[in-house]
Amino acid sequence: MNQIAVIGLGVMGKAIAQNMMNHGFRVAGYNRTYAVTETMQGKENFIGYKELKDAIESLEKPRKIFMMVPAGPVVDAMIDQLEPFVEAGDIVMDAGNSYFEDDARRGKRLEKLGVHYLAVGVSGGEMGALHGPSIMPSGSKKAYDQVAFILETIAAQKDGEPCCTYIGPEGSGHYVKMVHNGIEYADMQLIVEAYIAMKAAGMSNQSISDVLESWNQGPLESYLLSITIKILREKDPDTQKDLVDLIVDASSNKGTGKWTSQCALVQDINVSLIHGAYMARLTSNDEKLRHRFPKVQSHMEIDTEQLRQAYFLARVVAYEQGFRLYSDASKRYGWDLNLSKIASIFRAGCIIQANLLEYIRDTFGRLGPDASLFDDFEEMALAHLPALKTIVTNGLLHDISMPLFTAALTYIIPMQQVALGANLIQAQRDFFGAHTFKRVDKEGVFHHHWE
Amino acid sequence: MNQIAVIGLGVMGKAIAQNMMNHGFRVAGYNRTYAVTETMQGKENFIGYKELKDAIESLEKPRKIFMMVPAGPVVDAMIDQLEPFVEAGDIVMDAGNSYFEDDARRGKRLEKLGVHYLAVGVSGGEMGALHGPSIMPSGSKKAYDQVAFILETIAAQKDGEPCCTYIGPEGSGHYVKMVHNGIEYADMQLIVEAYIAMKAAGMSNQSISDVLESWNQGPLESYLLSITIKILREKDPDTQKDLVDLIVDASSNKGTGKWTSQCALVQDINVSLIHGAYMARLTSNDEKLRHRFPKVQSHMEIDTEQLRQAYFLARVVAYEQGFRLYSDASKRYGWDLNLSKIASIFRAGCIIQANLLEYIRDTFGRLGPDASLFDDFEEMALAHLPALKTIVTNGLLHDISMPLFTAALTYIIPMQQVALGANLIQAQRDFFGAHTFKRVDKEGVFHHHWE
Repeated sequence: MNQIAVIGLGVMGKAIAQNMMNHGFRVAGYNRTYAVTETMQGKENFIGYKELKDAIESLEKPRKIFMMVPAGPVVDAMIDQLEPFVEAGDIVMDAGNSYFEDDARRGKRLEKLGVHYLAVGVSGGEMGALHGPSIMPSGSKKAYDQVAFILETIAAQKDGEPCCTYIGPEGSGHYVKMVHNGIEYADMQLIVEAYIAMKAAGMSNQSISDVLESWNQGPLESYLLSITIKILREKDPDTQKDLVDLIVDASSNKGTGKWTSQCALVQDINVSLIHGAYMARLTSNDEKLRHRFPKVQSHMEIDTEQLRQAYFLARVVAYEQGFRLYSDASKRYGWDLNLSKIASIFRAGCIIQANLLEYIRDTFGRLGPDASLFDDFEEMALAHLPALKTIVTNGLLHDISMPLFTAALTYIIPMQQVALGANLIQAQRDFFGAHTFKRVDKEGVFHHHWE
Repeated sequence: MNQIAVIGLGVMGKAIAQNMMNHGFRVAGYNRTYAVTETMQGKENFIGYKELKDAIESLEKPRKIFMMVPAGPVVDAMIDQLEPFVEAGDIVMDAGNSYFEDDARRGKRLEKLGVHYLAVGVSGGEMGALHGPSIMPSGSKKAYDQVAFILETIAAQKDGEPCCTYIGPEGSGHYVKMVHNGIEYADMQLIVEAYIAMKAAGMSNQSISDVLESWNQGPLESYLLSITIKILREKDPDTQKDLVDLIVDASSNKGTGKWTSQCALVQDINVSLIHGAYMARLTSNDEKLRHRFPKVQSHMEIDTEQLRQAYFLARVVAYEQGFRLYSDASKRYGWDLNLSKIASIFRAGCIIQANLLEYIRDTFGRLGPDASLFDDFEEMALAHLPALKTIVTNGLLHDISMPLFTAALTYIIPMQQVALGANLIQAQRDFFGAHTFKRVDKEGVFHHHWE
């Protein structure tokens, strides 16, 4: 009998199935188009099936079904197809990037049949899926306990711990994965802005790569820096030109950054770097906006040590904003998230894996879910703030597009108890709408007759 | 017989009823709490009713019912109560700040009874409602034609034209009002940032007021500037101190700025100034964040002419972003909005009334709904850009919180065809997720084997 079915054998499904097989788990494979399944036939620990029914019936009970299909209606359609073949006690996992509010609905539907539903966030791309991703499962804890031996085995391992932990009830695993992606958007854009700044200083891709390599250690070490270092050195096989220079300056997205921004608005949390990163992607595709004014040449001198400090500080702001979402969601949705454990499973396997997560794990481990990264990074922040100011203001003066470095700075300024002028807003609101205001010298709520 | 019923006699309902009465319309008044209605009894052209039924039955047919009740469940509850008393051909208007997607549902519900439903945006606060607001009605055009004689009479008048025009089908009137409020948030925050910058230069409220007064002419003239000028000169009657200094530096909101940001995300439009204005309000209430770092003193020198130029440019960006929402919504929702007419009815009565609207009316009138304000303001923008850069960078260097001035600058920089580095994002996405990229030198979609 097979131990687990993998439904959907695209890039990610194939890789995660192979990961399971490599660990000795017997996998039943099914894909809508059998030709895809066929390419895997004959591999050790794998049997591919033409019919979904046969794949499911080949499983040990309780059946473990791991869906890796595109988020959205395809997931519902696949559950429709699974329904006749599953029975009470079986466990259906949705490992795609589903929207977390869809999970509650799908979970309820399957629970009616006694079938358990797990929302499983998976990060790591194709290579992560194959060699060990970061895995964020949520839903019934009991059901999780029955699949933990597989998920924790195939996950990335860091210092002997699996990068897989039970997250919480309902769709909390997909929520955690979504915000992970939001942080990913922000960190990618921050690296881009450092690259753009160095380009504007006339540096070659090779020199930029060398600088990033010198940064890629200690608290700044990260997977995203590592791949960027490689990208900037990559030649186009045909032309021998730097490949990055041949790619169109317009970026796509698959929606998780947008969702994170939308959730942040619902939660009333300012995630200006995640939001700004999504907006930067939109802007890059806005041909009309980008050609509105005459072209300027961006050029400035750059001190790469200042740039490193600015990047470090801005990156901590990006993670801080993301983890504030977790802290709020934990209470708002009653999920009781363990922020230290979330940081812990991000330390390897996933796209935002970075040494910084060690610090974050420690901060939330010591100080609890209401901690701020700046509880531990205050000294760094105050030391690096002058560099951030210099980089941002030079960039703005010289027409360098650095929206996220800038957003990090405008996020930090109010942290110094400066006046925000919200008193004037309250006065305006009371003037035109009788919305009332509070006073600094008296308790109560006041309305003034302005005219 | 009465000509129109006003349901809900709070601050806004009372004012708009009085406006109707002043114009000779016979108003039937109803409020949940009769004590409120009673305060209006005896006024000319007004009869207040204890029972909703009696108010409705007092009306000429087709009955015209103008609801001015709080947005949300209260509107549905009021429709529940109205249902037994209305009949085919009657017209129910919701003049609150309802969310535009609720209108379609409510409209369908009433259309089943043959009753017409109009979503009516009203802006102008209490004084506007009394003396002439800006009115944005939507829904059935036929129904609108039957109430136009009232709405266009009570609306503000500008150069002989009423600041009331049929907007489009469904909830488009509420949508237009919502974005109006979003622009209002942004313009209020921009004025606040100018005030904060001048305060940091050591100027008194009186001097700041004088500067704003010198700005308040030509294309910069606006209602919001006018009231701010008055606010900054207002003394607290008790202490004789400047009242604005006695108000707590934390601002509230009623949600329309948040909705506008949420809609912008759905529409994939960057409204960074509206979004930033909402975030600034959140930040002002975030005591924990605001006390994270040691307090600094913000001080800088300021050139008020540079500040004026920076404010002018940033304000045009705020309106541009808002009108981009209209342009997109017009197509996205099939509303066929007339952007020139929208600008036209904003010229008087509403909170964002300003001379700038004359220019916007003209731009969209000449160039159509896909125009940009920068089609006409390019020269101004390029002339004022150095001032905006100076103000923003000095502000950031000196710990002045100016998130919207900054957002205006980061919005403009990509308009100069500068490199955004999105090519590197595409390379990163292709590296870790095989998401493919486009090339500048070849047609097609490519994936590279990076490792």
